[in-house]
Amino acid sequence: MDGDRRKRFVELHREGCFLLPNAWDIGSARMLEAAGFPAVATTSAGIAFSLGRPDHDFFAEHGPAGRIDRDTMLRRVREITAAVAVPVSADLEEGFGEAPETVATTIRMALAAGAAGGNIEDFTGERARPLHDPALAVDRIRAARATVDAAGEPFVLVGRTDTLLVGGSVAESVERANAYLAAGADCAFVPGAADAATIATLVRELDGPLNVVMGLTGNALSLDDLRDLGVRRVTVGGSIARAMYRHLQRAAQELAQGTFTYAQDQLSQADLNDLFRPHQPDVG
Amino acid sequence: MDGDRRKRFVELHREGCFLLPNAWDIGSARMLEAAGFPAVATTSAGIAFSLGRPDHDFFAEHGPAGRIDRDTMLRRVREITAAVAVPVSADLEEGFGEAPETVATTIRMALAAGAAGGNIEDFTGERARPLHDPALAVDRIRAARATVDAAGEPFVLVGRTDTLLVGGSVAESVERANAYLAAGADCAFVPGAADAATIATLVRELDGPLNVVMGLTGNALSLDDLRDLGVRRVTVGGSIARAMYRHLQRAAQELAQGTFTYAQDQLSQADLNDLFRPHQPDVG
Repeated sequence: MDGDRRKRFVELHREGCFLLPNAWDIGSARMLEAAGFPAVATTSAGIAFSLGRPDHDFFAEHGPAGRIDRDTMLRRVREITAAVAVPVSADLEEGFGEAPETVATTIRMALAAGAAGGNIEDFTGERARPLHDPALAVDRIRAARATVDAAGEPFVLVGRTDTLLVGGSVAESVERANAYLAAGADCAFVPGAADAATIATLVRELDGPLNVVMGLTGNALSLDDLRDLGVRRVTVGGSIARAMYRHLQRAAQELAQGTFTYAQDQLSQADLNDLFRPHQPDVG
Repeated sequence: MDGDRRKRFVELHREGCFLLPNAWDIGSARMLEAAGFPAVATTSAGIAFSLGRPDHDFFAEHGPAGRIDRDTMLRRVREITAAVAVPVSADLEEGFGEAPETVATTIRMALAAGAAGGNIEDFTGERARPLHDPALAVDRIRAARATVDAAGEPFVLVGRTDTLLVGGSVAESVERANAYLAAGADCAFVPGAADAATIATLVRELDGPLNVVMGLTGNALSLDDLRDLGVRRVTVGGSIARAMYRHLQRAAQELAQGTFTYAQDQLSQADLNDLFRPHQPDVG
């Protein structure tokens, strides 16, 4: 059950480097599982887009308009964990609120949704103050850790700092990531670390395992490169979802011209029906 | 509101030929709407796959295992109609049951879900008897028609015959389609009619507008060709969804090899966030 999956997920982080691709619905999660990955993550961007909503980003003048709420996000996480046999790590964004108690509730909900791990980030979405103050950010991770410990379940808690995304320095990202590890994060995630030099610095300076995100246009490193650099875990964020939307847009544009060549390259109905035949989650 | 959309949808069928592409979730429906299509349809295959379920096909030995139920399907239709401003035509498969009263209930649910039209097909899913008997199939369409008329709402009722898909003749498909039109269908849909000769015969022999489905591998006709043949409406079934799954599978396979080139071709996070900013449905 979920306990076994969670143990397996913790084990994946013990050594080496693994790829944890990001799904947005059951169909995409099942496809990634079928491709052989030992675990999948969710992507808040992909989930939001599939629901026709913007991802958590800098709020427009009207505030976080249109952002999906925590219940909706966790419901999707639950659907995915119920449909695949592999462990699922949930993108929990900034925990859906500022206060440590709110983050704690979000972690409890992620555990209830069957997640084997989850990320809490320090990005606020506010231009004037894009990251939570360091002391608060640490308290938020500490609250998440205490919630996991109280639950007594294996759960890979990831402390994510968006320092580099909002224009901060590598030194500042090291400081924050180490503070989150010290507060009880099992793994540090530093999006925006995409070149070998930055990643090597992070691996050297951090007091715990590093997750990096690939899949942005222009990324030139391979999984082997990242393993050689000492990265422990690699996610791809919303990149698969965004690539699918690019293909969808291209198909739509072609259709608007009245031709159908996009369809020459499709999985067959029979293959998809076979893939999605009933399946016992969490067997084996 | 829905009444205006429904009127617009009826108008689209009055003359000429239009393309009605098929979406499976809010994100795909919004993308198709953004590409300029005047209406979208749903695809039961795409919806099922996004939920990790097989589409309605020939039942395996254990019966219709894993098929999504009517409530789940109509909930997705409702999500889509609530999120786009264009009319939405619902793929209602075989009406989720054999009895005319069941079909009537399905049509009532489609109206309540905000659909501007919907298909009822004669495919049973049983190998021994793949199509409903003609008299029953006609009663099913008649029940759907009576439900629409009782509701007093514009609604494009499509009678679909799967005769060609299960190995029947063009003559038999003409007979069934005309019987469905006589029973009150506004439009006939004959999947499997993909070559010019068959389509020309259907247009000539049918007593009402014809919908054909493109997007299968090997389709060689364009929208202009179909318009010239006299087709009134063109859908693409699950083909866009199946093409997306092909791209997803390819990305997953590439990731399993440890590289990320799939991501060179993606929509940007900013463009997707802009696309999915809150939007007032049904304005203009």
